[in-house]
Amino acid sequence: MSILTRPILEINLDNLETNYRRLKELAAGAEAAAVVKDDAYGLGAENIAERLYQNAGCRTFFVAHGIEGEKIRPHVPDARIFVLQGVGEDSLPSFQKAKLIPVIAGRAMLDFWKENRIEGIKPAIQIETGLNRLGFREDELAKLTAEERGMFSLVLSHLACADEQGHFMNEHQRQNFVRLKEQYFPKLPATLSASDGTFLGSEYLFDMVRLGAAMYGINTAPYRENQMLPVVRVRAPVLETAVLNRGDFVGYSATYRAAEQRKIAIVSIGYGDGIPRSLSNVGKVFFYNGGKISEARIIGKVSMDNVICDVTEVENLRAGDMAHIINEFYTLDDIGRDAGTIGYEVLSRIGKNPRFIRNYI
Amino acid sequence: MSILTRPILEINLDNLETNYRRLKELAAGAEAAAVVKDDAYGLGAENIAERLYQNAGCRTFFVAHGIEGEKIRPHVPDARIFVLQGVGEDSLPSFQKAKLIPVIAGRAMLDFWKENRIEGIKPAIQIETGLNRLGFREDELAKLTAEERGMFSLVLSHLACADEQGHFMNEHQRQNFVRLKEQYFPKLPATLSASDGTFLGSEYLFDMVRLGAAMYGINTAPYRENQMLPVVRVRAPVLETAVLNRGDFVGYSATYRAAEQRKIAIVSIGYGDGIPRSLSNVGKVFFYNGGKISEARIIGKVSMDNVICDVTEVENLRAGDMAHIINEFYTLDDIGRDAGTIGYEVLSRIGKNPRFIRNYI
Repeated sequence: MSILTRPILEINLDNLETNYRRLKELAAGAEAAAVVKDDAYGLGAENIAERLYQNAGCRTFFVAHGIEGEKIRPHVPDARIFVLQGVGEDSLPSFQKAKLIPVIAGRAMLDFWKENRIEGIKPAIQIETGLNRLGFREDELAKLTAEERGMFSLVLSHLACADEQGHFMNEHQRQNFVRLKEQYFPKLPATLSASDGTFLGSEYLFDMVRLGAAMYGINTAPYRENQMLPVVRVRAPVLETAVLNRGDFVGYSATYRAAEQRKIAIVSIGYGDGIPRSLSNVGKVFFYNGGKISEARIIGKVSMDNVICDVTEVENLRAGDMAHIINEFYTLDDIGRDAGTIGYEVLSRIGKNPRFIRNYI
Repeated sequence: MSILTRPILEINLDNLETNYRRLKELAAGAEAAAVVKDDAYGLGAENIAERLYQNAGCRTFFVAHGIEGEKIRPHVPDARIFVLQGVGEDSLPSFQKAKLIPVIAGRAMLDFWKENRIEGIKPAIQIETGLNRLGFREDELAKLTAEERGMFSLVLSHLACADEQGHFMNEHQRQNFVRLKEQYFPKLPATLSASDGTFLGSEYLFDMVRLGAAMYGINTAPYRENQMLPVVRVRAPVLETAVLNRGDFVGYSATYRAAEQRKIAIVSIGYGDGIPRSLSNVGKVFFYNGGKISEARIIGKVSMDNVICDVTEVENLRAGDMAHIINEFYTLDDIGRDAGTIGYEVLSRIGKNPRFIRNYI
């Protein structure tokens, strides 16, 4: 009898590399930068940056925070590493140590940079085109001196609705971007699109695309079938099976009650491992027995370390068998949708618990 | 001008120790064990276990997984460490190395243990009393041999609805627990209650309580004012402020549109840091200016690294100022409720991103 207790996270670096290459081809003519912020969405920025640097020739990376850049520097020795949240007192040492490039997003940060600038580093400037998140607004751009405008090496903005092909915001932001870039930084290379924008057509590519979510297997162009390969698989062992009798309750707050006799499995994964608690009584897991896939509904509340599922219809299930939580059939996008969120949030959570057995392929 | 970029997680070990002592007093007569699974709900199991061991005399700890037990062992050299998810092939080495005690939850795991038992270790047995999660069901208990029953050192079960004082399940489970314990393990010490059960009265204490959520400041007895001190504070810097004009959209998918001119702040924390994306357009953050607290509503979608909030009513706000995300006024329970979940899930997420500046007090 094989007994296991830990959930398993499998990260397919071959598929990730293939996704990167496909996206690079789609963006032909533009540089394909890789976004490895938030520890590569939880999948391990060091491994992923190294793989893309060594095998796929990627030479530009984006992270969110200085410490994230510092962490990947040894793996991408001569690459450019841009830091999207910019630079501040708390992150300046990382920039100095690892030669990181800040993405400057406003006047206050620019003033800070001017007082603390690092020899040989030319920042990117983020400009606001419609997302209303980080970036210089037009009135701030107008106040930049010629000398200040000359400090930058790249113009960046970010699309709000690029996962909806026909959304009016896309063209609106693109036009704003072209106009502001031409007016203030006519000679600088420019980047507007992340993964989702890369699918919108050549006029969204400019000089560089910033590939993140799609590279990790998320469908960032959900108006058509996913063209990316799955990168993430999550499985977790059944610790125990049991029988529910009519009237039995399941889980915290007794939110599920059996109307008839059911068989249940207690699976060793929970919200502590990143399984959204919003899957309580609505999510599902899958079992594979020979060639047969069986769906098993999550019943009761997801708890910190366990989910309980109804396996009445699953044949020959035993303690030690593996429940499939995310795979090529039930993807990050599927679990995100069922949890009332998006695959990005699930992905970012899944990679964060060190108790996963983590296998890179 | 002070510019910062990283979110800050402050963990008040003094308050945590006070909470432990208060709960211990409440549970007078029973042993007060500490639950530090899931890296002490994300707060750092090594620090917390060491503090409770050194300063508060705690000598029994619970973790979920073998590797979690292995990690705290050097900090609690002669304490008992119970492992709630039990033991399997993948975790056995941790048990051997760190002298961990499995909580055996079913027949398959018991058989595994009998083949792999570790000299000097007497497991706990988990019995099912109504939660229908892990634990021996009555028919399985009846099949245990006398020798098998003699292998254990502790009987454990877990309450489903102990955060609702009057819930019928509490008494139902307690009676089941007493009956099964008396029948099968009359001489063993017993533990039924976690934090929430500890508030239900002396008949729920038995020989040991397992203190987790309440110790971390969560109100596990929400039918009355929280008697615990806050342990967690989360703050994050404003990277930039900006003006929205009438008709401007905010964030991904353009889910917020300004009806009039507003002032916004872009705060450097997002769902990558554990802020639930379900707070999009419903959550709030707070600013402190002198003695004055101002509430600022989150507008648009929470993104991976940022939230955007409406600071029209906040006076004198500048880039570099700190937004308060969780504190003694807006607690884990509050943010959990606003996010459509519970404080436990938020807490477990918050501690997981290494890009937090983490301060122990």
